[in-house]
Amino acid sequence: MNYCSHCGSPVHLSIPAGDNRERHVCNQCGMIHYQNPRIIAGCLPVHGDRILLCKRAIEPRYGYWTLPAGYMENGESTEEAALRETLEEACARVELRHLYTLTSIIHVNQVQLIYLADLPEARFGSSEETLESRLFREDEIPWDQLAFTTIRNALRFYFSDRATAEPAFPLRHIALSPEQDELVLIR
Amino acid sequence: MNYCSHCGSPVHLSIPAGDNRERHVCNQCGMIHYQNPRIIAGCLPVHGDRILLCKRAIEPRYGYWTLPAGYMENGESTEEAALRETLEEACARVELRHLYTLTSIIHVNQVQLIYLADLPEARFGSSEETLESRLFREDEIPWDQLAFTTIRNALRFYFSDRATAEPAFPLRHIALSPEQDELVLIR
Repeated sequence: MNYCSHCGSPVHLSIPAGDNRERHVCNQCGMIHYQNPRIIAGCLPVHGDRILLCKRAIEPRYGYWTLPAGYMENGESTEEAALRETLEEACARVELRHLYTLTSIIHVNQVQLIYLADLPEARFGSSEETLESRLFREDEIPWDQLAFTTIRNALRFYFSDRATAEPAFPLRHIALSPEQDELVLIR
Repeated sequence: MNYCSHCGSPVHLSIPAGDNRERHVCNQCGMIHYQNPRIIAGCLPVHGDRILLCKRAIEPRYGYWTLPAGYMENGESTEEAALRETLEEACARVELRHLYTLTSIIHVNQVQLIYLADLPEARFGSSEETLESRLFREDEIPWDQLAFTTIRNALRFYFSDRATAEPAFPLRHIALSPEQDELVLIR
């Protein structure tokens, strides 16, 4: 950030009165410009014993597999965002069960929410953001071609929970730091 | 938003290629400026049979009671944000149990996360944002002087859950629209 989005004058970094962090403050009009984490909402679509994954048609991680998910927009709920992203990326209509993972991805200032969801009909497709969508059984998951640590985590939790006597799929609450992210990527 | 925060030129509203929403786009450098919901993180601090509330020293809702909560910052997890806000606003050190309410407040582009928390010692105070902190038993809660619908909801859920035979305090997942917000405020 170099300029004030309100009046167009240059900004500088300083700690406003009553605050304890550096913010971008306008030299001219004094407006304080806060920057905050963004929410990624998506889902883990289940169809029988298979999971729907999308092959990314965009960077980062072009060509790698992911769960349908993307930035939450103003004017919608987290559930609406998850449903919209699934429809946009995978052309799939799902029914959300409940929130399954909440991950603070600290080094990129994101909070990712993944809902466990049912895909009633095996209808899905490609899109501007997705080269291909496909259903995978557990033994078919391309573990070394998954786009993000958070996606790998969600799938691991799912198959682990599903294998229990009475699967409850409890909410998993995770904070990823760069070190942990690296660690999990290497494994 | 009137000016590009990158180059300082005027912006206009248009739908970028591959997008389906109007964004602020720079006339000069072409940068697209996205606006997304912000996260509010806080907690419901329990000390024995009492709850810690804070009387607001800032607008909006100056003088009304609230749970300690505020904007999540870049570079922290949702839990860290909840702990920090509780320390900053109520001068209280709490131990988080688990996520208790997730509310999409659609008309103000916020997602509020409230954690159920234990306040081991009855130590708390005032701050720049808080006129006074106080512990309230259920029959002392100032229901008509609560700052926000989300706070009223969280307290209602808590006392309702606490009254059950084996309190589990499950995650409540809520989407508030302006109409619902008004409705609950009137009641």
